[in-house]
Amino acid sequence: MTKRMAKRAAAISPFHVMDILAQAKQLQSQGQDIIHMEVGEPDFDTPEPIVEAGVKALKAGKTHYTPALGLPELREAIANWYQDYYQLDISPERIVVTPGASGALLLVMGALLEQGEKVMLADPGYPCNRHFARFVEGDINAVPVTAASNYQLTADHIEQHWDDKTSLALLASPSNPTGTVLSKEELELLSNAVKQKQGTLVVDEIYHGLTYDGFKATSALAIDAQTFVINSFSKFFGMTGWRLGWLVVPEGYTEVMDKLAQNLYLAAPTMSQYAALAAFKQNALDVLEQRRQVFQQRRDALLPALKQLGFTLPVTPQGAFYLYADCSKLLNDKVPDSMALSRYLLKEAGVAITPGLDFGNFQAEHHCRFAYTTSEERLLEAAERVGQTIKRFS
Amino acid sequence: MTKRMAKRAAAISPFHVMDILAQAKQLQSQGQDIIHMEVGEPDFDTPEPIVEAGVKALKAGKTHYTPALGLPELREAIANWYQDYYQLDISPERIVVTPGASGALLLVMGALLEQGEKVMLADPGYPCNRHFARFVEGDINAVPVTAASNYQLTADHIEQHWDDKTSLALLASPSNPTGTVLSKEELELLSNAVKQKQGTLVVDEIYHGLTYDGFKATSALAIDAQTFVINSFSKFFGMTGWRLGWLVVPEGYTEVMDKLAQNLYLAAPTMSQYAALAAFKQNALDVLEQRRQVFQQRRDALLPALKQLGFTLPVTPQGAFYLYADCSKLLNDKVPDSMALSRYLLKEAGVAITPGLDFGNFQAEHHCRFAYTTSEERLLEAAERVGQTIKRFS
Repeated sequence: MTKRMAKRAAAISPFHVMDILAQAKQLQSQGQDIIHMEVGEPDFDTPEPIVEAGVKALKAGKTHYTPALGLPELREAIANWYQDYYQLDISPERIVVTPGASGALLLVMGALLEQGEKVMLADPGYPCNRHFARFVEGDINAVPVTAASNYQLTADHIEQHWDDKTSLALLASPSNPTGTVLSKEELELLSNAVKQKQGTLVVDEIYHGLTYDGFKATSALAIDAQTFVINSFSKFFGMTGWRLGWLVVPEGYTEVMDKLAQNLYLAAPTMSQYAALAAFKQNALDVLEQRRQVFQQRRDALLPALKQLGFTLPVTPQGAFYLYADCSKLLNDKVPDSMALSRYLLKEAGVAITPGLDFGNFQAEHHCRFAYTTSEERLLEAAERVGQTIKRFS
Repeated sequence: MTKRMAKRAAAISPFHVMDILAQAKQLQSQGQDIIHMEVGEPDFDTPEPIVEAGVKALKAGKTHYTPALGLPELREAIANWYQDYYQLDISPERIVVTPGASGALLLVMGALLEQGEKVMLADPGYPCNRHFARFVEGDINAVPVTAASNYQLTADHIEQHWDDKTSLALLASPSNPTGTVLSKEELELLSNAVKQKQGTLVVDEIYHGLTYDGFKATSALAIDAQTFVINSFSKFFGMTGWRLGWLVVPEGYTEVMDKLAQNLYLAAPTMSQYAALAAFKQNALDVLEQRRQVFQQRRDALLPALKQLGFTLPVTPQGAFYLYADCSKLLNDKVPDSMALSRYLLKEAGVAITPGLDFGNFQAEHHCRFAYTTSEERLLEAAERVGQTIKRFS
């Protein structure tokens, strides 16, 4: 009997970082100290006031399904957040609460991407995006981006790379893995370019809130109400394990998202939705602001340390918690690419990072991602250890 | 600008019960008392020991991602459950923890159903199944089933209805909406029939545990280790809002499910997974056994009451918490089908039920589903009110 496997599933290659993780685990079990810079989630636990609200909900018996679109009071609270944080007037009717940003991506691709159509996105970018497209028998139109455009798509890219099969453009600001943020002007140009192509714009804003140097990311909703915006309670609000995100849709799209949600996942976790109501309160926001400052300090410590080690980082990213580094200068015959470097640094320095291949194909073999989701002290220790290791092999 | 909408999304018709629900809400807001028999979730809150475990996990900072396949200790606990409850030896390696049974269905369809291929399933059946197939650009092969086969597929159905495009068969035992359960012998015949067609068998066992008359459902895993089995913490374990289920895969399929999970949803909610560890403990199981007995009492009260009202129920279902009733004898020019009857009973009797159309097309216009997810007292009051209403219109 041949093993049944749909082509779409066979087409997904495992994340390379999983190799790194498995090896890290093995080394740890042998007593080696590993500094984790490969993890895409905040090291902080969920802020206390949010946890307390979750506990309270559980104790009050909030263990049943919610409506598929989410608790009405949470949709309202998210709408208020757009008012408070962005000074944007978004109707709660346009807000769909989802099980993580993953749930939002599933809805968007399911509702918008026709079989055989393509999503334009930046290479490097969030690795799951291409698989969401493939899952619904669509495809991607991956555009190589460099430091010259801040690792973001530009209106020129849209102009040059759009083709008959492309119907959606997916931006991420701040971006994973590069941490770069689109300015309001860039967003406007991109939005117009996509509109000229009769395309639909989707913007991943899951790292909003985590921006530095006094910079605040513009929501794409400020530019065009026809844009689909994906957001999450995971990153800025520190609620990864709760699996909660949201989607803002243009008017007229709530019903189809409701139908899809009812069928695909019924509803987001109930206790998470009640907990999230506390995320917008001042006592939680105070904790989150402190953490944001800590992230900025870490970035400011790690970036020069990496440069000193010989990594090339042409831009200073203003968001998320990632540094995307060119490691060309550190490669040699023994360590010929970023995957080999990742393996080498894990084994020799006890430092886990993510090889560029997980984020796309373009120049992936000489880039890697450092997540600053561990303390500044550990980050600097990692840099120190990497430095010692590099000395030995160069 | 034309509104962008993928064909797969446009093809999903909203659940008819949503109409009923919206109207019920409106009537309730006007002060009318509505008895809810349309709800597919237990009315009981999650058992206290499970809630306590969830609270404990939250307070201990279990708010981060788990592995995509689930907490190793939960996969182990589920494997132990197969040993304890079914006397089956299932390796934890074959267990994939999912965000609800919905997550398991997404994985199964994504991994197994090729674009353009069909899933054979019973009509009537769980309404979301057909949409999962459609979501990955597959389709269904819906086989009309009647009381003659206990509303289940049979080996004969497989023989007669299988075609070149059909690759999967999806059974549900106990079934939603009919509550009927497959015997071990029937499962064996079905399993063999599917194998002869070179097909793959998927069995939805999410109502396992909720069986009556001393009857215990056989897991398809007892028959063939090549079967994919979907289960859930929602129904028997009373954890709907926690969004947690699982999937048992044949050996060799764990890796592809891991890849899909990493991409599609990252992981099931963390606190739910920790809470579920308590679901298999004796103090929780004692509560669940009491509830099971209550469900049986409700079924035993509601079934004769519905018959007395003129509904036809040719079989006594041995599982889940649904009665699937033929309402032909109650229809007339004014109330010509089950949708009209559902609307009429809601308006005139304040009783909400689900019209057959939500479960398929076959004889749907003269069937409806009663969920006994409310107290026996309320169920009997509903029957009384329906009786008064029927008298008025017949």
